[in-house]
Amino acid sequence: MANVHEELFHEVTDDSEPKTHHKVTIVGIGAVGMAAAFSILTQHVSSDVALIDCFADKLKGEMMDLQHGSNFLRNAKISASTDLSVSAGSQLIIVTAGVRQKEGESRLNLVQRNVDIFKGMIPKLVEYSPDTTLLIVSNPCDILTYVAWKLSGLPKNKVIGSGTNLDSSRFRFNLAQRLKVAPTSMHGWIIGEHGDSSVPVWSGVNIAGIRLREINPNAGFDEADQENWNQCHKDVVSAAYEVIKLKGYTSWAIGLSCADIASSLLRNTNSVKAVSTLVKGIHGIDKDVFLSLPCVLNSHGVVSIVKQKLSDDEVAKLQASANLMDEVQRGIIF
Amino acid sequence: MANVHEELFHEVTDDSEPKTHHKVTIVGIGAVGMAAAFSILTQHVSSDVALIDCFADKLKGEMMDLQHGSNFLRNAKISASTDLSVSAGSQLIIVTAGVRQKEGESRLNLVQRNVDIFKGMIPKLVEYSPDTTLLIVSNPCDILTYVAWKLSGLPKNKVIGSGTNLDSSRFRFNLAQRLKVAPTSMHGWIIGEHGDSSVPVWSGVNIAGIRLREINPNAGFDEADQENWNQCHKDVVSAAYEVIKLKGYTSWAIGLSCADIASSLLRNTNSVKAVSTLVKGIHGIDKDVFLSLPCVLNSHGVVSIVKQKLSDDEVAKLQASANLMDEVQRGIIF
Amino acid sequence: MANVHEELFHEVTDDSEPKTHHKVTIVGIGAVGMAAAFSILTQHVSSDVALIDCFADKLKGEMMDLQHGSNFLRNAKISASTDLSVSAGSQLIIVTAGVRQKEGESRLNLVQRNVDIFKGMIPKLVEYSPDTTLLIVSNPCDILTYVAWKLSGLPKNKVIGSGTNLDSSRFRFNLAQRLKVAPTSMHGWIIGEHGDSSVPVWSGVNIAGIRLREINPNAGFDEADQENWNQCHKDVVSAAYEVIKLKGYTSWAIGLSCADIASSLLRNTNSVKAVSTLVKGIHGIDKDVFLSLPCVLNSHGVVSIVKQKLSDDEVAKLQASANLMDEVQRGIIF
Amino acid sequence: MANVHEELFHEVTDDSEPKTHHKVTIVGIGAVGMAAAFSILTQHVSSDVALIDCFADKLKGEMMDLQHGSNFLRNAKISASTDLSVSAGSQLIIVTAGVRQKEGESRLNLVQRNVDIFKGMIPKLVEYSPDTTLLIVSNPCDILTYVAWKLSGLPKNKVIGSGTNLDSSRFRFNLAQRLKVAPTSMHGWIIGEHGDSSVPVWSGVNIAGIRLREINPNAGFDEADQENWNQCHKDVVSAAYEVIKLKGYTSWAIGLSCADIASSLLRNTNSVKAVSTLVKGIHGIDKDVFLSLPCVLNSHGVVSIVKQKLSDDEVAKLQASANLMDEVQRGIIF
Repeated sequence: MANVHEELFHEVTDDSEPKTHHKVTIVGIGAVGMAAAFSILTQHVSSDVALIDCFADKLKGEMMDLQHGSNFLRNAKISASTDLSVSAGSQLIIVTAGVRQKEGESRLNLVQRNVDIFKGMIPKLVEYSPDTTLLIVSNPCDILTYVAWKLSGLPKNKVIGSGTNLDSSRFRFNLAQRLKVAPTSMHGWIIGEHGDSSVPVWSGVNIAGIRLREINPNAGFDEADQENWNQCHKDVVSAAYEVIKLKGYTSWAIGLSCADIASSLLRNTNSVKAVSTLVKGIHGIDKDVFLSLPCVLNSHGVVSIVKQKLSDDEVAKLQASANLMDEVQRGIIF
Repeated sequence: MANVHEELFHEVTDDSEPKTHHKVTIVGIGAVGMAAAFSILTQHVSSDVALIDCFADKLKGEMMDLQHGSNFLRNAKISASTDLSVSAGSQLIIVTAGVRQKEGESRLNLVQRNVDIFKGMIPKLVEYSPDTTLLIVSNPCDILTYVAWKLSGLPKNKVIGSGTNLDSSRFRFNLAQRLKVAPTSMHGWIIGEHGDSSVPVWSGVNIAGIRLREINPNAGFDEADQENWNQCHKDVVSAAYEVIKLKGYTSWAIGLSCADIASSLLRNTNSVKAVSTLVKGIHGIDKDVFLSLPCVLNSHGVVSIVKQKLSDDEVAKLQASANLMDEVQRGIIF
Repeated sequence: MANVHEELFHEVTDDSEPKTHHKVTIVGIGAVGMAAAFSILTQHVSSDVALIDCFADKLKGEMMDLQHGSNFLRNAKISASTDLSVSAGSQLIIVTAGVRQKEGESRLNLVQRNVDIFKGMIPKLVEYSPDTTLLIVSNPCDILTYVAWKLSGLPKNKVIGSGTNLDSSRFRFNLAQRLKVAPTSMHGWIIGEHGDSSVPVWSGVNIAGIRLREINPNAGFDEADQENWNQCHKDVVSAAYEVIKLKGYTSWAIGLSCADIASSLLRNTNSVKAVSTLVKGIHGIDKDVFLSLPCVLNSHGVVSIVKQKLSDDEVAKLQASANLMDEVQRGIIF
Repeated sequence: MANVHEELFHEVTDDSEPKTHHKVTIVGIGAVGMAAAFSILTQHVSSDVALIDCFADKLKGEMMDLQHGSNFLRNAKISASTDLSVSAGSQLIIVTAGVRQKEGESRLNLVQRNVDIFKGMIPKLVEYSPDTTLLIVSNPCDILTYVAWKLSGLPKNKVIGSGTNLDSSRFRFNLAQRLKVAPTSMHGWIIGEHGDSSVPVWSGVNIAGIRLREINPNAGFDEADQENWNQCHKDVVSAAYEVIKLKGYTSWAIGLSCADIASSLLRNTNSVKAVSTLVKGIHGIDKDVFLSLPCVLNSHGVVSIVKQKLSDDEVAKLQASANLMDEVQRGIIF
């Protein structure tokens, strides 16, 4: 081989590994992690993706399967290892690893088990990539983003939870279906806790600047609204449950949501997206908790949070989530 | 709802469903079918994808999961049904459905079971989309492409097997890794039967027009070649087995390969790709069998086959595959 | 050549030209037409572009220059002719051709000269592509879209003016710069006549659903607003003049705007964009005139118009534009 | 304004400018420079482009025109200045600036005038971006790449001429047209000096690994070849002249070629492309000259040169070019 290489190539630089400046590491290669990896590769958000997992066989299988397609992926580089060092030099690390709730397990217990996993990896990941941004996808997303922030020592702008970016996308799809327009032309935001307690901001739902409530003032109110727009939010809350019931897990939409956030960070776009960020000091929240709010994202991570005009009821819901999360967080043993 | 819609929109045309001219239907939503769908959507090969499967729950789950991401997919339209009519008006139908070999089952028996499945759907699919091209991915790919051709009544150029497009991509990756170049700059073709009996055309392997055999005349010959280049082909043959052993199935690379072929067809590019086509009359083959050869692909499907200069040994292997397949095909009950 | 072709290829279908279903013809290959063509090709909105112009030399030069890059454009097909028949089978025809105002020439006189040009081509273009949508970019855009509609015999949904899609994009950029967010996260619409009399809909300007006027109720009012947000609109009105003064013409932004509209039409997205459409019956307008309003676009063209809640002043401006245009239109000799 | 900004945003990090890691600066905004910028932006090779030119008005006009389209360009950042400092932190600097040959001017005189321009900017550009790669497009390309290398103090792998990447693309298009295949499936290389003395490597011309000369052994030989394949090279040599004669300048294809090279560098792909590099020590050349050969490109720039098997005649032509260029270079006053 040396033979062919030598006869075929005239070396111009020595063989040191070239550096990319858009490396993305994905920790945890379940359905969510792989959908994120595949979305990032096929949409050319990054051409340098590293995979990490503790299951060496599955990890090698996923790596090979992606590598066999690199001919179709503009020559993307795919690496993988059970060793965290494979992540070195990442611009972004997406964490999808974590355990699931056991039957009868308390929320705190689940969190604690994931904290223990995070303890073993977050500090090392940051050591290998001191300039990285962390994007936490593992559930419960908001609390684990807080945990990652605590464990990482990174500034608050560099630790982000995927949060309600996906919930907002589902919301827009549901609204858009009713009105037969593109989801990207249907504007609406879901904020707060990712999952059951998420808060739809009905006041801002609009098409071309016309608010839904200008036409139907009751939109989003359960009893008063004869058109039952709130079903669009209820369907968001039940979406993950229903998809899991139907196909066993969620993957494509959360993978695309990760790629969407990654794109804002790596391309430095200043796009506004609903992601989980440290919300202390906003909407009357005085705890160190992470919740999703519309954030301006660029290569610094979260540069600023957009302060929406919320109703008293919406603020109350956010504060309730904040208090609940703070309580859980107090019980965590770091 | 009528209320909001009416107040918000002034209708310009009546509500009839708009037609797209790049609809792709995917039959069979296992790991392969879904990776194909996701590759086609994320790479914007089509923005109109229909899914068909007999498992209604999983089908709905996959459809919902993709729809929840349509906000990130330039507003692609995703539809799904257990009913074949959802495919109506497709430009391309990708068939990944089929049963797997049972323990101890003969190859012919396996083929017959898949023929029976194809009988129930191919004629109807073509009825709903008389101008469609069929891309057969189900295994054994080459024989089932023949079966689809027979059942469809379509001209031979409109029935294609995904064949060795993937094998060739794996081959290029393996060669490229050795020489540290991009797979897309490493040219090499694997032809013949998709799978164990595939034939690497070593004479044509080249970088920038320099043939590997100009440097190492023994490249590809097992005993004579001290550099063991043939390992690059052996690794192609074992690739699917190894990935399946490691992660349970293959998905990403075959999905990307389908999107790559779909792109040539829908974008009418005249690209040359190794796909399974009716090879009667080429390389001394006189049977009605489908094998992969480099083909020029455009919106007509296969417009022509590139006649490579093959060695006697390579031709013999192709003919052996052809005879074997012809024998199996004779046993099929249509 | 026959020799090589014959020895190299085994024909599978006869040589008839394959059809694409996304052909775009661009009439007029000045800076605007070429920027539109290049935007459509590089962004893969279509891989089949035909150019038409009366200057045969420049036309051939532009065609060759694009063809020399087709290797970098996923094998796009570029054709060109001074003969309108090259457009046959187009899904979309973008008209950028037209004469410019002479010194001292009346508006009506200018319009009439362009009408005479349109007379010679619009009916023939529609004959060659009876299912086409027309996108009129030539100025004065709104009146010439009306003229194209009259001459084409096409239904109103199939004749569109590029209108204020560009003005809206400039508006969003100007607003976004002030607030340091991405233009795509800064929502705002400019409607009405493309150019000096365009109308910014300040009530709808928002980020993440929060209206600018919720924070600064005077935003957009000239005297009252100490922050002078209206400068963002004034800069839109002067933008074309300033760019023309500085570089001699406008090209990139209008080319991208055309590709953006083309993408909605060809990909059938139902996106909402501000384009010029027949507005009779909306906002109290009772004339057969074309003005830009937010429209839902898909493969049918304009499927519906979004009825914004406008202030009396905004409605008055639209109606004034409508009356002025109607007056000019009455003077046209068809 | 401070008012709105303050009420709308909660700052998370201070306002320092975020860094991108894929900034591209384009020096010289004539038709070539702008086509390169637009290709890079529309194909998302970089989302951070700086423009430099000495004509402040045109520069501002081009910047504004691109910025007005940033809404359609995934929020790309466009900056521009007559001051070289705007390039600070570039990963890649593309130089298209330079004067053209006056009537009766000697080649050396032309070169010297461009050297004087390069003297004033190359050292400063490298000071502002010490890790940059330089891509020289200005003509005569090969000599000016040598000049840039000398003036920059950069290692040889980091100074590249756009060279015959465009000639090769034109060659493939011409060959592909004859055989009715996609240019990307038609392989062929033009090496040596960019322009009249370029050398087509006929021995390597192939489709799917089948060499044209296996079918027509005279292909490329002027007298012997009755099919006159060499016309495909002659048309490459005359292409620039003809396009300039027809439309006044070349732009699209060279712009796309720059974006293609930029993509290999920024995405770190190890793709093989024909670019101008220091060829001393290859093909018997013993001078410090730059000529195009197939090179492996990644984020290091040129990592290695592919050593093609050339005929004596081809080597003689390369050496003649090398000697000629060396002679010109000796006359340059640095």
